[in-house]
Amino acid sequence: MSRPTARAVHLVARPDGAPTAADFAFVDETVPALAAGEALVENLYQSVDPYMREEMEEGGWALHAPLEGRTLGRVVESRADALPVGALVQHRQAWRTLSVVTAERASLLPDLAGVPLSAHLSVLGGTGLSAWVALTRIARLQPGETLFVSAAAGGVGTAAGQLARLLGAGRIVGSTGSAAKAARLTERLGFDAAFDYHDGPIADRLREAAPEGLHVYLDNVGGDHLEAAIGALRERGRIAWCGAVAQYNRLGNPPAAPRNLFDVVGKSLRLEGFLVRDHLDARPELYDFLVPHLRSGAVVPDETVVDGFDRVVDAFLGMLRGENTGKMLVRIAD
Amino acid sequence: MSRPTARAVHLVARPDGAPTAADFAFVDETVPALAAGEALVENLYQSVDPYMREEMEEGGWALHAPLEGRTLGRVVESRADALPVGALVQHRQAWRTLSVVTAERASLLPDLAGVPLSAHLSVLGGTGLSAWVALTRIARLQPGETLFVSAAAGGVGTAAGQLARLLGAGRIVGSTGSAAKAARLTERLGFDAAFDYHDGPIADRLREAAPEGLHVYLDNVGGDHLEAAIGALRERGRIAWCGAVAQYNRLGNPPAAPRNLFDVVGKSLRLEGFLVRDHLDARPELYDFLVPHLRSGAVVPDETVVDGFDRVVDAFLGMLRGENTGKMLVRIAD
Repeated sequence: MSRPTARAVHLVARPDGAPTAADFAFVDETVPALAAGEALVENLYQSVDPYMREEMEEGGWALHAPLEGRTLGRVVESRADALPVGALVQHRQAWRTLSVVTAERASLLPDLAGVPLSAHLSVLGGTGLSAWVALTRIARLQPGETLFVSAAAGGVGTAAGQLARLLGAGRIVGSTGSAAKAARLTERLGFDAAFDYHDGPIADRLREAAPEGLHVYLDNVGGDHLEAAIGALRERGRIAWCGAVAQYNRLGNPPAAPRNLFDVVGKSLRLEGFLVRDHLDARPELYDFLVPHLRSGAVVPDETVVDGFDRVVDAFLGMLRGENTGKMLVRIAD
Repeated sequence: MSRPTARAVHLVARPDGAPTAADFAFVDETVPALAAGEALVENLYQSVDPYMREEMEEGGWALHAPLEGRTLGRVVESRADALPVGALVQHRQAWRTLSVVTAERASLLPDLAGVPLSAHLSVLGGTGLSAWVALTRIARLQPGETLFVSAAAGGVGTAAGQLARLLGAGRIVGSTGSAAKAARLTERLGFDAAFDYHDGPIADRLREAAPEGLHVYLDNVGGDHLEAAIGALRERGRIAWCGAVAQYNRLGNPPAAPRNLFDVVGKSLRLEGFLVRDHLDARPELYDFLVPHLRSGAVVPDETVVDGFDRVVDAFLGMLRGENTGKMLVRIAD
């Protein structure tokens, strides 16, 4: 019996500085016959994420081999009872049009009528869960408090803004990389104020946007933003550091530590880092909280969807350059 | 009626660098007649503390005026019903042999038979409370965990070591400024390992003293110690920063921020600063926990007691030079 052909992307070179399309190659692979316990998945959506930049370094993804990433798809052939044909699943064998998975490596998507499929990779996925954990478990945002989010137009940032609004935040301020993104944050994504961080010292912009100071800072970038936020935090303020920041360090180029770090003592601040993989048990809380708002349309997942598997590398590189607002996704098939 | 004379210390100059005895002057003052609601206290013990260094700067203590500080004494004359003659009280009008207080400015010492009076200024006072809050509220030390304490031979440090032992810490490591103090920490104060931080890189000493890494770091100094501790902390480790560190900053000479700060994300660490004045409600917990151990002799407050009010300035300057082990106190009268 003839087997289908999958189109896939391999990493073929490790970047020196910014990655380029030449670091990747598209390859065609014949899908082998399924073994017992396996299922073939036609991939529908793939996530491209900042952590993948780190995987391109030595010690990360192998060269000339299948890559990984979060993906949604539909089972089209099955020798696994738990993965019937037609089922929608989530798995990590991304960067290809067809994936062979086992039940251990794929999870059935919950039946969430009225929720867009792509939401499982955005506000209900790792980025939404990062924002949820940062706000509820790490910073423990209270109603009426003022929140500042850096990289606010990205996947975690836009999820954080929308979740914080629903959690009763008093004021939500975002920093982003262009005036157009800042306008989008306030006009469409529930932020009360937003600024382009290129517009002068961040401390000054923060003073204008939150003259009474901050209760919580959700840090995605470190550096100048962190220093300015420490300065603007009120007593007993909290800083939640998302995993994304860590990659700067492992890429050998960490941002400078804030010069005012010792204000953490004077103002009784709390800084806490977390990795979302340690908080996967929070997913049911997020679903319970958010699904009704997704069904009612009160929350619309903020996504930049690039169409077509042929553009997956472009989407990834564009995400690294900040060309997305909200979660960057690739639609592979309908 | 002739009034008694109090001997007092005033600040007469602000130091440029390290303070000296010439910055202070002893003065004799006639105690005025008591107004209604006032009591006269003969002071017995006074505390000298690191925060007082900061009070010597512009904006702190006034020149040529009464100073403040925690003091224990006995009421010897009273026009206040709540402060009967003979009562033992704690107040903040220190640096003098006799103080006029009101009931609002003085608190009766609880009747703790079998507990040494000076303990109210050491393990039951601000330093003991700082250690208690750091361990139980901020770092939330768990039984079996490994604790590292900097400035371990000081008031907060020795209290922290003794409290951590009683709280079930698995291993307690201290850093201090001399081999003699390090020996005292392990021989008399319940530390499992201690080192002189002058003996080579702190990271190396920590690796020897706690080869399996740290769960909690109680920071009193910042700088190299903080950087080494961040490196040695295990995943989900906690750093409690005591108020004393803050003074470096206000004195215009903060230690360098740690170059590995972003490991806080990679290892999901928590850094939290606190000021003990925000946690005075923890005092009853500390009393309930510690008083039985003080009565049984299982805990002996670690104090350096300097005898005589004439030596109060010497005691303060000696404390700044690290000449004490444990809490530095001055015995003014028996």
